[in-house]
Amino acid sequence: MTDDDVKPIKPPKRPRRRPKKPNPEVRARLIGAATELMSEHDPSEMRIDEVAERAGVSVGTFYLYFDGKDDLFTSLVVDQTARLRERLAKAPASGADNVLAAQQRLTAYLDFVDENRQGFLHFLRAGSLETTVGDLNTWAFSQHALDTRPAIDAVLADARVSEVERELVVQASLAVTQHLAGYWLHNEDRISRDDVQQFVTELTTAVIAHLVSR
Amino acid sequence: MTDDDVKPIKPPKRPRRRPKKPNPEVRARLIGAATELMSEHDPSEMRIDEVAERAGVSVGTFYLYFDGKDDLFTSLVVDQTARLRERLAKAPASGADNVLAAQQRLTAYLDFVDENRQGFLHFLRAGSLETTVGDLNTWAFSQHALDTRPAIDAVLADARVSEVERELVVQASLAVTQHLAGYWLHNEDRISRDDVQQFVTELTTAVIAHLVSR
Repeated sequence: MTDDDVKPIKPPKRPRRRPKKPNPEVRARLIGAATELMSEHDPSEMRIDEVAERAGVSVGTFYLYFDGKDDLFTSLVVDQTARLRERLAKAPASGADNVLAAQQRLTAYLDFVDENRQGFLHFLRAGSLETTVGDLNTWAFSQHALDTRPAIDAVLADARVSEVERELVVQASLAVTQHLAGYWLHNEDRISRDDVQQFVTELTTAVIAHLVSR
Repeated sequence: MTDDDVKPIKPPKRPRRRPKKPNPEVRARLIGAATELMSEHDPSEMRIDEVAERAGVSVGTFYLYFDGKDDLFTSLVVDQTARLRERLAKAPASGADNVLAAQQRLTAYLDFVDENRQGFLHFLRAGSLETTVGDLNTWAFSQHALDTRPAIDAVLADARVSEVERELVVQASLAVTQHLAGYWLHNEDRISRDDVQQFVTELTTAVIAHLVSR
């Protein structure tokens, strides 16, 4: 199953005509327009006609590419997840310096959150859609978990840490990072990005040191 | 502001008649019926007429007490948050044995999740409502953060841990606990409640030990 197969399960109100020759450039333009609009005002109030106008196409053309808002939002999450994964992949999962690699991944993650504030907050708040890959947010989380696992295995190497514990370390580190990124954006008057970055790094290092030495 | 003042911001479709003499027993019966129905099938498909029938009142009476599903759901979250806080309060925040108290709180939390599986998963998945106290899920989280803070302060005592770091410890511990509770329910074939309980306890202990000793 490819990313393009991730679709909301709820059937669209009317069956969609599909373009005879779908133009990936038009689809990308619509996703780009929606991403831009998300950063400008409350994403829950985004209107289809705004997205079409920003992309320079008609509302009719929009509906050739997407079944509606749920379908567009699903594609946005899939698209942004792929972009974030690409960025994170640039920080090597294992290598000579695992601590440095983990810091680079965290920096890449917080850069991404910083550049997509409204979209990120909307993602945290909006609730999840039922899609062909199950609950959409759980799917996005599991994609990052797959990517994070090799890094955790590398630092734990021969430590006496069970399979279940490794899985829980991955989940816990992602949950803390995601939650504290949201907490930072909600409380910028008191909490800085550096506070979060230092705290997550210190916590992760302490937990890993504990697991390796027990 | 009391719990009863927590209301969705989105205006109801039609202005609601209010009962001349609201009967708290009827309101409690409606909330009880909704809580029961939540554990029986997918909460997102709950219908008002089902809730009224289960509570033994008419749909008209339902609308004397709630503006609709959003209002009912907000009241459910407020009600369940209060119940959970009551239970957690039974485990003392500080005392002779802080580790034991933390374990009791974690046990109380996981008991609650175990007894309200469908409702808890719906809460994680459903997305948050805008209410008079802001984003509803953020409000519920912040209530637990207020309760957890004294326990964290007690174990950290005179440790060199800044105000911001204390806040982040509280947020991180709640985020991990909530996320892993959901992860357990989603993966019961591989992950047991005990796995999560032991893991969270060990992780928390290791982090606290690190912060106290640095």
